[in-house]
Parts: sequence; structure tokens; C-alpha cells
Amino acid sequence: MSTDAALRARAARVVPGGMWGHLHAGRMPPGYPQFFTRGEGGHVWDADGRRYVDLMCAWGPVILGHRDGAVEGAAARQAALGDCLNGPAPVMVDLAERLVDRIAHADWAIFCKNGTDATTACVTIARAATGRRAILVAEGSYHGAMPWCTPVPAGTTAEDRAHQHRFRYNDIASLEAAADAAGPDLAGIIVTAFRHDNVVDQEMPEPGFARAARAICDRRGAALIVDDVRAGFRLHPDGSWEAVGVRPDLSAYSKALGNGHAIAAIAGSEALREAAGRVFVTGSFWCAAVPMAAALAVLEELERRDVVPWLEHLGTRLRQGLAQRAVAFGVGLRQSGPVSMPLFMFDGDADFAQGRAFCAAALAAGAYLHPRHNMFLCAAHTEADMDEVLRAAEAGFEALRGA
Amino acid sequence: MSTDAALRARAARVVPGGMWGHLHAGRMPPGYPQFFTRGEGGHVWDADGRRYVDLMCAWGPVILGHRDGAVEGAAARQAALGDCLNGPAPVMVDLAERLVDRIAHADWAIFCKNGTDATTACVTIARAATGRRAILVAEGSYHGAMPWCTPVPAGTTAEDRAHQHRFRYNDIASLEAAADAAGPDLAGIIVTAFRHDNVVDQEMPEPGFARAARAICDRRGAALIVDDVRAGFRLHPDGSWEAVGVRPDLSAYSKALGNGHAIAAIAGSEALREAAGRVFVTGSFWCAAVPMAAALAVLEELERRDVVPWLEHLGTRLRQGLAQRAVAFGVGLRQSGPVSMPLFMFDGDADFAQGRAFCAAALAAGAYLHPRHNMFLCAAHTEADMDEVLRAAEAGFEALRGA
Repeated sequence: MSTDAALRARAARVVPGGMWGHLHAGRMPPGYPQFFTRGEGGHVWDADGRRYVDLMCAWGPVILGHRDGAVEGAAARQAALGDCLNGPAPVMVDLAERLVDRIAHADWAIFCKNGTDATTACVTIARAATGRRAILVAEGSYHGAMPWCTPVPAGTTAEDRAHQHRFRYNDIASLEAAADAAGPDLAGIIVTAFRHDNVVDQEMPEPGFARAARAICDRRGAALIVDDVRAGFRLHPDGSWEAVGVRPDLSAYSKALGNGHAIAAIAGSEALREAAGRVFVTGSFWCAAVPMAAALAVLEELERRDVVPWLEHLGTRLRQGLAQRAVAFGVGLRQSGPVSMPLFMFDGDADFAQGRAFCAAALAAGAYLHPRHNMFLCAAHTEADMDEVLRAAEAGFEALRGA
Repeated sequence: MSTDAALRARAARVVPGGMWGHLHAGRMPPGYPQFFTRGEGGHVWDADGRRYVDLMCAWGPVILGHRDGAVEGAAARQAALGDCLNGPAPVMVDLAERLVDRIAHADWAIFCKNGTDATTACVTIARAATGRRAILVAEGSYHGAMPWCTPVPAGTTAEDRAHQHRFRYNDIASLEAAADAAGPDLAGIIVTAFRHDNVVDQEMPEPGFARAARAICDRRGAALIVDDVRAGFRLHPDGSWEAVGVRPDLSAYSKALGNGHAIAAIAGSEALREAAGRVFVTGSFWCAAVPMAAALAVLEELERRDVVPWLEHLGTRLRQGLAQRAVAFGVGLRQSGPVSMPLFMFDGDADFAQGRAFCAAALAAGAYLHPRHNMFLCAAHTEADMDEVLRAAEAGFEALRGA
């Protein structure tokens, strides 16, 4: 029995379903490991010692690379002093200043732990600021796993989603219709940095759509919230919607901010500061100094290493390489979204059978890919890593040809 | 200008109100620092280098002591391998097994980050398991800072608290009335391990009340949820309600579990396993291996050092010493709740003026106390620390006599 199988058997006794949430290997193709023992730079090792080029990067937290020296060094230096104290350490101020300097729209920041903490707080602050209740939410967008936003309804109530009005991403008419439905109760619009919904092609935000969202909020005195939890720091160093020239009032960050250390942030503009000071959001570890020291190092290293262009360079190499091979193998491959957060799907593959067969073969050849969720590049990846992924992908294309 | 004042001035520009949540020094008496630079064992140092015996222990996360060697060693060993990977590390299984072994009612566990993640998931699982919606919640109990439970209504809606029915802690008749009000829609009862509501005397759970809660849930097929986030591991190593002989179906843990590392846990009994497997709860860092390695070390060290009796010993010494001094100084002092989580209040002190003056003087004499929130002892505290607190408290009593 493999080590992974033995661990799964033990886990099945003490964890419901053997695992919970988005890292459940039961959602992955056959052969995918559940347990991992090591990460280093752009690679991970499973519990049986197999090494993979890691194109999930822990589903986003890892942006500089696993066990980044600068980040871990900063974390260790803070840990030698203290972590959870009776108030924040001075690094909290350094981090807030750095984030406010970096994020174009931000005049202030609050730190928390989960992306969902940040998206929920943004909605709460928008409601507190406006004294209204209605929030516009795109159909199919993922904003976290609390009852108001979880994609799985088990255990939630209809009231958990009260005062939500749906629109379609990049569809201005549907956005305006939702705003009209909200009427004078419109508190805000929450929208992901780009469309990265589950199991559909990704879409970048159309500038006209982003401007329309901004205009609706301006006209109606509502707050525009960009959920940058997944995309933050990978697309644009100053906030993902800088690329379309639209600044939100509130934005939510998490994942990449701490390169794996648990931290999230709410960034806001001046007009929302007073309301943000009135809401009560907190948690036992929200002022922990070690993840803040790690996040400060991440922001410094993202600048110093000029990470966004490097991720784009690697992502372009990967996308072009996959496209060339798809043509050569005669396979209909669709790639969508930002090159640094690649998603690929196969034509006519509604049940993801092709995607799963492709990924299973690529995994066996040393690349950890995902058949229906966007992937993540990190700064520690090299051109050689992308070439290794492309070689592994050839095994995937072979598997499809054989099927 | 003090370093703390300089940091506050900078923070006021980049953080709403200069700070958020329960660690806002604006809620504390004059002279209390906002920023801390160091923690070691049972002591903390503020940004100006002043050392205090720490009776808040980061408001609960620190149970073994700041920078505990066993915990930090385990965390560092895991960090040298990896933290956030594409699935959990093997330590997740070790930790779940250990928690299930330890917590009397638990057959399974799920790990998350915040106490509020755990309490919210317990409610969600209770609803999923029963297919019902109503939850009984005690008036004034704190279960976290999400919209459904935050004590501050700013930015929340009436629907955030839909299907909640209120009862009074330790009041069986009010509990039964709330259950009747819920009728056939009763999904569960959520109750804190003891009554530790804000700014009132603490109350231990009366065994009859705990048994009544259990009986109502049994009779109606609802889930009994004990919120052990604050008290967990400080009162009883097997779950706080073991002391009253009542076992919940679900319990929520956080704070002390990681000795400061961000982790929380949902523990459940067999009957809730299937429902727990159906709900979707997850977060970007919930499978991070370092906090799990830290938590495993915490559970091992709690046993090895037999921490609960030591905390009781220290807490008794402190409580008796304070009581003696209150009599000697002719001050009406009330102490309530478990000795290891002390709360003191002064008679006729509705505005906490006495409490604030007392704590300000004690702070100046080297003890970090809280004038209206329960405090926390840790295993690293010594009898000498308690005696130092008692000497500082004498400065507090003197201040009251002078006033």
C-alpha cells in the first residue's frame, strides 16, 4: 500500500469523507495524491516521495515559491520575538503602510485570516457605509465558503443570501438590471478581479463593464468591491483592476499576500474609512505578527523581483507551448484567463473525461495540473519548469490520442 | 514621544480608527500600550520595552507560554519541509487522531483558521444534518464576529440572524421556551463552555442546565453545539463540558489549540459525520501544515505537562490573594468564572471607572490585566508571576483608596 493510501485510510476514520474543502483529492483524476510532504520553490513532493512541477501552488497562496528564503527569514526573525501578543507588533504598521502605498485605490487596510473574512468584511463595510442592504453578486462567482457565498447550499438558509441580486460577469445590461432591482437599497457591487468561476472558461474583465460598475456605484452612492483574493498580486502589482483603469472602493486580498502564511486584507478608500472603523470584525489570530512579517517580505520581494512580468513570461511560454502541441496532436484545447493563472479545457469535454485523462498522464510524467480549475504560476518557476510541464503535457496529449 | 505613540500616529493614517477589533487599545485604561514587540513565557514587552506579567495571553491563544520551545520547534521542523501544499501534510492525520482521542465526544475533526470559522461550520453542519434551520443562542453570548453573531450590528441585516431564538444562560425554562418557539424547525443549540459574556460576571454551566440542553436535543433530534473556542483545553483536557458530564454533538475549538499559530477545529460525533461531509467549508490556509504541527505539539505538551491542574493552582493562588487584599483594602471585589480564566469586577462600578483605575495602576507596576474581560493564565506562568501580579494589584488597590 502506498503511503498516500495508508494516510487516506487513517484519515477516513477521523475526518468526514477523509478530507474537506477544495483540497479533497476525491475531486481530482485517478492517481492524484491527497498528502504532500514537501515544497521547495516551484516543486512539491507527495507522501510517497514523487516530485512534481507544481502548477497549483497550494491553489494560490504560493506566489514566490515554496519556502521562499526571504519570506521564511522574515517570519523566523519575527517568531524569535513574538507572534500573538496583546496587540499588534510594529510590523502591522509597516505592512499597512506598504499595502496602502502599493494598492492604487487604498487609503487604509485591515488584516484578517481568510479570503472569506475579507470579502465578508467588505460587504459589511459597504452596508455600514451606506445604511443599505442590497449587494450585487455575479452568477457563479466564488467569494468564499461562508453561508452567504458558499457554492454548496447544504446547511445554509434562504436568508443567508437575502438582499443579493445577480448579474452576469461582463454583461453591462444585467448589471444595470440588478442595480435597478436593488433600487434605493443598493449598498454595493462585489465582483471578482476576473471571471474565474468553477468549470467554465475564464474571462478577463471588459473595460466597459468595469467602468459601468464604477459608474453605477458613483451614481447611486454604493461601494464597488473588487474581490482580488485569488488574483491579487499576480496580474498587476497595484490591484488587478488597474489594468482596466477602474478603482474600487474596497478590495479583498488573501492567498498570495503571505506566500502561504495565513493572512488576508481589506483595503479601502478614504470614503469608506469611517464605516470600516464602525464595524466589528476580529479574530483570535488577526494580529499575529509572524504572518504580517511574512506579508511585508512578500510585498518587498514582489517589487524587487518584478514578479508580474516574469509570471507573464512563463505563462506565455506555457500557453504557446500547449497550443502548439494541441494543434500537433489534433486536440481541441481552449486556454483562457490570464497566462499567469492558466486554465485549459478540452472541446466537447462536458464531463471532463478528457481533462482528467490528460492530467492523470501529465501527473505521472511529473506535472501537477488541474483539469477544471485555474492554475497558478509562481516566481520560483523557471523556463525549464515550463518546458518540463510541456513534456509532461505531451504524455497527456498522447493519452488522449490513445483513448 | 513614546514609541507606542509614534506607532499609533502612523497607524491612524493607514488603519481605520488606528486599530480594529478586540485588541484596540482605545478600549483599555489610560497608559495601556497598543503595540508589543516581544513575548516570552508568561511575559510580554511593549514597544517601549516595558515588561509585563501577561494575564491576557493574546486573549487566549497562548496556553503554554509565548514562544514555547516544543511548539516552535515542531513548527520550525514542519516549516523546513513545507506549509501550504496542494493537500494536507501527514501531520493533519496525526492531529485529527490526537484530537479525536482527546476530546471525549469527538469521532472526527475538521480544521480551519478562526474560532468563527468553527462556530459557523458547527451551525451549518447542524442545519445540514437535520434539514432544519432554527438555532438557539444565548443572549449576550459571543460566538465570533461574522454577521450572524457579531455583537456590533453595524453593517449587518436582520436576515443575518434569521432563525435564531434566544435563551438565558443557565436558565432551563428560557431554554425550553426557545426550543418551543423553534418548534419542529429546531436544528441545534449553540452554547459557550461557560458564561463568559462581555462585561458581566462569569458563570459556570449548571449541570442541570447542561443536561436539559442535551435532553432537548435528544428529544427533538437536534444537535448540541458547545462553543469551546475560548475555554477549550483550559478547563478540562477532554472538552469543557466533561466537567458537568454532558457531551455535545459538535464542538468548536480555536485559541489555545495552536498556542498562537492560526488554527481552529470542528469536532463532531459519529451521527454528524455524514452531514459534515456534505457541507462545503474551506479556506486558502486551512490545510497549512505548520499550524497543524504546532497544534499537535500543543496537545502533546498539554498532556505531558498536565497543564489544567497547574493553571488551577496558579489561578487559585491569584484569586485568593486578590480576595485577601480586597478585604484588607476594604474594596468590594467580585471574582467569577474558572480560576484559570479570571474575571474581576468592583462593586458599584457600572462605568468601570474603578476597574480602569485599578488596572492602570497595576499596569504601571508590571501586570497586564483587563478591567472587564476575562483573563487567561498560561502554563509558563509561575507562582512568582502570580505573586508579582498580586504586588501590582496592591498598587491598584492603593489607587482606588486614593480616589
